[in-house]
Amino acid sequence: MNSKKIDFTIPNLGEAKISSPILMSSTRNDGQADYVSDGDHILYSIDTDIDEEGRPVPRHSETVELAGPREKIYYNPAHTHAAITTCGGICPGMNNVIRAVVRCFWYRYGVRRISGVQFGYQGLLENTPWPLIPLDPDVVDEIQEKGGTILGSARGGGKKVDEIVDTLEKQNINILVTVGGDGTLRGASEISDEIKKRGLKIAIIGIPKTIDNDLSFIQSSFGMDTAVQMAVPVVRCAHIEAKNALNGIGLVKVMGRHSGFIAANTSLAQSDVNFCLIPESPFDLEGPMGFLTNLRRRILDRSHAVVLVAEGAGQELVPTTGETDDSGNVKFQDIGIFLKEKILEYFAKEGIECNVKYIDPSYIIRSTPADSFDSIYCARLGAHAVHAAMAGKTQLLIGLMNNRFVHLPINVAVGSRNHVDLEGSLWRDVLENTRQPYSMKNTKDK
Amino acid sequence: MNSKKIDFTIPNLGEAKISSPILMSSTRNDGQADYVSDGDHILYSIDTDIDEEGRPVPRHSETVELAGPREKIYYNPAHTHAAITTCGGICPGMNNVIRAVVRCFWYRYGVRRISGVQFGYQGLLENTPWPLIPLDPDVVDEIQEKGGTILGSARGGGKKVDEIVDTLEKQNINILVTVGGDGTLRGASEISDEIKKRGLKIAIIGIPKTIDNDLSFIQSSFGMDTAVQMAVPVVRCAHIEAKNALNGIGLVKVMGRHSGFIAANTSLAQSDVNFCLIPESPFDLEGPMGFLTNLRRRILDRSHAVVLVAEGAGQELVPTTGETDDSGNVKFQDIGIFLKEKILEYFAKEGIECNVKYIDPSYIIRSTPADSFDSIYCARLGAHAVHAAMAGKTQLLIGLMNNRFVHLPINVAVGSRNHVDLEGSLWRDVLENTRQPYSMKNTKDK
Amino acid sequence: MNSKKIDFTIPNLGEAKISSPILMSSTRNDGQADYVSDGDHILYSIDTDIDEEGRPVPRHSETVELAGPREKIYYNPAHTHAAITTCGGICPGMNNVIRAVVRCFWYRYGVRRISGVQFGYQGLLENTPWPLIPLDPDVVDEIQEKGGTILGSARGGGKKVDEIVDTLEKQNINILVTVGGDGTLRGASEISDEIKKRGLKIAIIGIPKTIDNDLSFIQSSFGMDTAVQMAVPVVRCAHIEAKNALNGIGLVKVMGRHSGFIAANTSLAQSDVNFCLIPESPFDLEGPMGFLTNLRRRILDRSHAVVLVAEGAGQELVPTTGETDDSGNVKFQDIGIFLKEKILEYFAKEGIECNVKYIDPSYIIRSTPADSFDSIYCARLGAHAVHAAMAGKTQLLIGLMNNRFVHLPINVAVGSRNHVDLEGSLWRDVLENTRQPYSMKNTKDK
Amino acid sequence: MNSKKIDFTIPNLGEAKISSPILMSSTRNDGQADYVSDGDHILYSIDTDIDEEGRPVPRHSETVELAGPREKIYYNPAHTHAAITTCGGICPGMNNVIRAVVRCFWYRYGVRRISGVQFGYQGLLENTPWPLIPLDPDVVDEIQEKGGTILGSARGGGKKVDEIVDTLEKQNINILVTVGGDGTLRGASEISDEIKKRGLKIAIIGIPKTIDNDLSFIQSSFGMDTAVQMAVPVVRCAHIEAKNALNGIGLVKVMGRHSGFIAANTSLAQSDVNFCLIPESPFDLEGPMGFLTNLRRRILDRSHAVVLVAEGAGQELVPTTGETDDSGNVKFQDIGIFLKEKILEYFAKEGIECNVKYIDPSYIIRSTPADSFDSIYCARLGAHAVHAAMAGKTQLLIGLMNNRFVHLPINVAVGSRNHVDLEGSLWRDVLENTRQPYSMKNTKDK
Repeated sequence: MNSKKIDFTIPNLGEAKISSPILMSSTRNDGQADYVSDGDHILYSIDTDIDEEGRPVPRHSETVELAGPREKIYYNPAHTHAAITTCGGICPGMNNVIRAVVRCFWYRYGVRRISGVQFGYQGLLENTPWPLIPLDPDVVDEIQEKGGTILGSARGGGKKVDEIVDTLEKQNINILVTVGGDGTLRGASEISDEIKKRGLKIAIIGIPKTIDNDLSFIQSSFGMDTAVQMAVPVVRCAHIEAKNALNGIGLVKVMGRHSGFIAANTSLAQSDVNFCLIPESPFDLEGPMGFLTNLRRRILDRSHAVVLVAEGAGQELVPTTGETDDSGNVKFQDIGIFLKEKILEYFAKEGIECNVKYIDPSYIIRSTPADSFDSIYCARLGAHAVHAAMAGKTQLLIGLMNNRFVHLPINVAVGSRNHVDLEGSLWRDVLENTRQPYSMKNTKDK
Repeated sequence: MNSKKIDFTIPNLGEAKISSPILMSSTRNDGQADYVSDGDHILYSIDTDIDEEGRPVPRHSETVELAGPREKIYYNPAHTHAAITTCGGICPGMNNVIRAVVRCFWYRYGVRRISGVQFGYQGLLENTPWPLIPLDPDVVDEIQEKGGTILGSARGGGKKVDEIVDTLEKQNINILVTVGGDGTLRGASEISDEIKKRGLKIAIIGIPKTIDNDLSFIQSSFGMDTAVQMAVPVVRCAHIEAKNALNGIGLVKVMGRHSGFIAANTSLAQSDVNFCLIPESPFDLEGPMGFLTNLRRRILDRSHAVVLVAEGAGQELVPTTGETDDSGNVKFQDIGIFLKEKILEYFAKEGIECNVKYIDPSYIIRSTPADSFDSIYCARLGAHAVHAAMAGKTQLLIGLMNNRFVHLPINVAVGSRNHVDLEGSLWRDVLENTRQPYSMKNTKDK
Repeated sequence: MNSKKIDFTIPNLGEAKISSPILMSSTRNDGQADYVSDGDHILYSIDTDIDEEGRPVPRHSETVELAGPREKIYYNPAHTHAAITTCGGICPGMNNVIRAVVRCFWYRYGVRRISGVQFGYQGLLENTPWPLIPLDPDVVDEIQEKGGTILGSARGGGKKVDEIVDTLEKQNINILVTVGGDGTLRGASEISDEIKKRGLKIAIIGIPKTIDNDLSFIQSSFGMDTAVQMAVPVVRCAHIEAKNALNGIGLVKVMGRHSGFIAANTSLAQSDVNFCLIPESPFDLEGPMGFLTNLRRRILDRSHAVVLVAEGAGQELVPTTGETDDSGNVKFQDIGIFLKEKILEYFAKEGIECNVKYIDPSYIIRSTPADSFDSIYCARLGAHAVHAAMAGKTQLLIGLMNNRFVHLPINVAVGSRNHVDLEGSLWRDVLENTRQPYSMKNTKDK
Repeated sequence: MNSKKIDFTIPNLGEAKISSPILMSSTRNDGQADYVSDGDHILYSIDTDIDEEGRPVPRHSETVELAGPREKIYYNPAHTHAAITTCGGICPGMNNVIRAVVRCFWYRYGVRRISGVQFGYQGLLENTPWPLIPLDPDVVDEIQEKGGTILGSARGGGKKVDEIVDTLEKQNINILVTVGGDGTLRGASEISDEIKKRGLKIAIIGIPKTIDNDLSFIQSSFGMDTAVQMAVPVVRCAHIEAKNALNGIGLVKVMGRHSGFIAANTSLAQSDVNFCLIPESPFDLEGPMGFLTNLRRRILDRSHAVVLVAEGAGQELVPTTGETDDSGNVKFQDIGIFLKEKILEYFAKEGIECNVKYIDPSYIIRSTPADSFDSIYCARLGAHAVHAAMAGKTQLLIGLMNNRFVHLPINVAVGSRNHVDLEGSLWRDVLENTRQPYSMKNTKDK
């Protein structure tokens, strides 16, 4: 963890003077739901250290602002034009977020101008072919029962900050809610900077979207729970395929470019995985401790095996393509196809018959509607984004931290990535469950 | 929240001197999974207050011991006889817990005597007809794909503390893992007291099981996520039934004796609920603010409605049966049937045709296998229970607190109940989603 | 089987002289899809008898007209006003039928006036509060993903033949497609008679809807496959509940007023049912061969049991209510609740502890969307209804017979019911699967 | 259809003289399930022709023997050793068949020696490493809840007829039930011939298994219904992916080497498919009527498209690999990957951005457990195979014909393939649903 003090202060566009149209209480214990005040904070961290007398003391003193409806708001709902856009790859829950944002603006605050921006930032470019879509509760009524996003989603466009802010001005947009990952949020941060430079009063609110769960400070990102729910039966199929073939090897690839959370959680949810390969834990193919050597042992012992690999695992093994996608992410060679070929080569060389069944369920997983866990999460993320925006806060994203919804400065969140801690309890429990070796690197000096 | 200091100290049976057979590291940053030490604590609470200078400061200073494998253990695995029992109503995930406990004892610690106690504490009584079942990894291999518990489950028996401790002694059981709710854990506490009185070295470890999520200090209890996943499509069916009939009213009852978490979360996960009734929020039937008056308004306005009611809601309205179940819980009259009749009477009186479709999915929900969320949770709960037991700790339960697995003294946990906070953010978000009135009591003086 | 000759002749409103806008071929073996001609028939029955020389010969000589697009049609699409209505209880697949009908009229024939009649025949009464709904492909685009029917459904109204035909005339409706069960189809027949009497040129086409599968001549009715798919996991839950309780008895009620097809098929699809009770096979409760005696034996032997009962089973045992529903069906007392009470009484009397878990999933089953089997079936039923109507045929229903879509005169189909043949192979296989006694009547002389 | 008379006569090993241990009735109308006699036949075909007087008359006169329990059986259960083996690729329902066969032998006939042969015919070879597995009701109790086959499955081995018959003799196997496709059944036929040549009394019974549904005379093969159920949500995902990307094209490959039934039925079950490509309907890529030209039109018009391709479609377009699998089937190049590349090339050439999302769910589909439709079907197939075997019949397979279970001579069934009739009603309805062109060949002279 970071030992430097983190600044969790949230910028405001100005003083919130307007009474909220939402009727709540500001005193506890009157049985009525309460407003949240800017003074309501939680501790950022629950970690403790041991002091000289052997007693645990808090390791961090930073606190974080709680999200929620404020008693006073900044924007006059009658004059507010809110917009929302969804960026990057699709992920379960995007429509739930859109729906919650629209409903909260409309029903709770009475905002009547709500626009959907199509295909991410591209819908805000000067010559975009895609017009804004007017949104209201009827339009979004049942969209959460569909996967994907009704606004379409695309990468890129975020670098053209001037064009985007021009469009926001021209369209009189006061609030922009952006749903997206690391690149999108960095774009949002730059847009905010330009807005500030121009002296505009436009709130930029981010809702973090990363099915890989690789954003720092965010306890877990929406869509990941659904992804694991969907991955489990696929692993079960791989297991059946493996058991039904002669020396069958079921090989499944799941999402996880930099972080192996989906693979790790799926391995815990499901008893059939024998090898879970994640980006955080590099491995060798051959040599006494290598993956293939271990796989060979398993096959000779049990005649079948299931391998679950995150898409970003073992990237040091595959020749790089050198390409990047529109968000600037390096394009990986397909580790699944690479592993399949290496396994076949190795077993052929060893003179052992084997049957590899490779399954890549990525599109099936990410295009599915949110499960109830993510539905609840997204409903609440969306509402909290609206509360923050109406209060005139900006350059923040809505995060879940220690199970509370909080306001996080965008710049804090995009600075670093969230990884599976190889020394922590999640990975420990995965290793216990798969019973794979602690390391499949030949040298210990990594 | 409680302002009195809570004592989170965990009792030990004695000094743990034996080196753990689990090979891990005790230094950070060597890339290897780490043991947990008794000094590893987290803060119990992340809540803050504002000091005189307007700065947030921690409201509570208590810390809680982290769960996890210890470097030194108390029991010699070769001499250990571990037992596990499951009590109370069935709940998704019980088999996952059994499986994790057995696998952790067997594979991680090398314990070879593991017994399943049938039908809760009743399987430990002197004249029980149900023998202990020997458990090993083969027996529990795929049990998690079934709902329920392979050990059977029953209420009662917990009062016969002497008989139970006699049986533990006779069977040379060193460790008893009990999976159960409030009553079961109170029983476990009394068994621990008797064990202590007799000077025995038997560890009693609880794993909290309450589909209603009504145990204090436990962030959420296993099975609740699955329950909500299962309740959502049922509410969708009720909605279809309601829309297809003339003035159709879909009425669904879910679990929730004292706490309305399943109903509240289902209402958030799903957009179709118009009225969510929970035990924490009493309501009137008739009168200007009463439920039936609101329902009538909705029907006249939209011609259909969906009502989701927790089984313990509105108990002040129904005549009590006066009976109790074997765990001593008061038996409620069926609020669903009661409401159905009241609705029909009221609409008949008002001269409005209506069709009530009442669905009680309780047995379907609770007998289902765990979803992936609960599977992961249960796998980890079970393993942590074993780690605690082998380290010679006792009178504790494994809890999830601020997303970490911790040791909680049983007596602390069973003292009070967890309720939906009517002034907190969950219920606030439910009210925003259902758009039901903040209160359906006629008088404000509750 | 009926030995009297059945008249399968289909009435026509007049000569079909207009060339169909659907381009197909009328010669075989040119690789193009073919029109169906009125001469295309299939044999009604595949049953054979043995002649004096021991050779099998066809038992029946009747043939039935095949459904499908005709080369010449009767109605000018530009002048056609088609209407569709859905009657009776909801059933999986109704929206699929509506969608297929609308799409076929619109895309294949170019009909642009298509009206949805709300709440069955009630939407055609003189003073109905529910207007016709204009339908087009956009309106019905994704309705098949929802259960129920977008038109709403209600019983009754069918007796007011004059009013209905008046409305058809006033609204210039040329074609009425009615989706419904026995009562609905009888109504359709009477409407046809009145139309004929008035010399009108209005086609009445029925699509049989009975989740119970109790219509004669129809191989199987849509929705039943989905009903069985949905019932199977419920029975599995009942089994889990039964096994987890002391002498647990899982009791599940499914639809089946006069015919036990859902119960019989569910018992075959699933291995957990020990007693399958259907209307066709009367049983006694007590006495040496009675159901309770058999249940007692099972419980003493195996400690748990699963009972699956069709709603119409054992009706001779329960006191009748004397009421009828709006379609004129006699209202049954709930056999599930009745059986539960009888079981509890009997076991109490016998001094055997038992726990009965009663599940009634009817609303969950019938309000679900169609599975793929029923989706395909409904898509084709709907299209065939349109082809028949455009060809000027009337007083028919679309049926599946020997796996072919055929035209059946309504009067032939509504005359008698389809029952599970107690001497046939379906029931034989059920008995083999459940291993229940061939009869649970005490006297042999039935 | 075939105009030559087909010989449906079933060979018998000898006279069945032993009274069946199954107690049934041999008279109709006594309310008890009936035996089936060898004289019980049905018409093979329901097709009619028109005679000179315009009346429909049966086109075929052949009749087929009904399957079912006989009053007299051939084998003495006490001396019977039955074996079962599963061959070829896995398919939903194989475990259901195994289970039904074992249960029927055991419970209905009292046979106590039942052996499972592992990995198809390979388990019967002289030097097989896989021993026979003893089967009984406990072993097969819940296997139907798993996909695949507990016996494992493999291609090949069927050519070593001598070795196989040697093994049958050595192991004293009297009955061999083989579950497999075209190649397997041909092998079974050759084994039967060798058995006859040696004068042995071993019954060979086939149960047809082809997920592609490409066996003649079999109305539909088990596993296909489940395959369609599983394919539908995958197509839905492809649709979501297509709609969320800029000019998105969702491309899904399903099974169907020679016959496109899965693709055709999935297109009917689901409204999202725009192009259904099957082996029976060859197509061009480019040119005015070619697939790519049509796809381009759709993309320019609607911005997204869904393409469903059977694995054997368009094989004349891809360079052949020249390889064959162990069953002798020609290995196809992957049409999905081929099409994906061709689409990308073509759109790049045309200067139109497009995003192709290719999904191959084959392993997920085929390794899933049977749905309720296939569960019922397999339960009945298995039981009928046992009845046939015990009656001393041989060289037959159990088929479903006109919804009745019948005995088909193996040689009749393996002679030809079942194809989607391009001029029949199934393909006609697919074309109406997808609204794709009747042909995507440039020349009309195919």
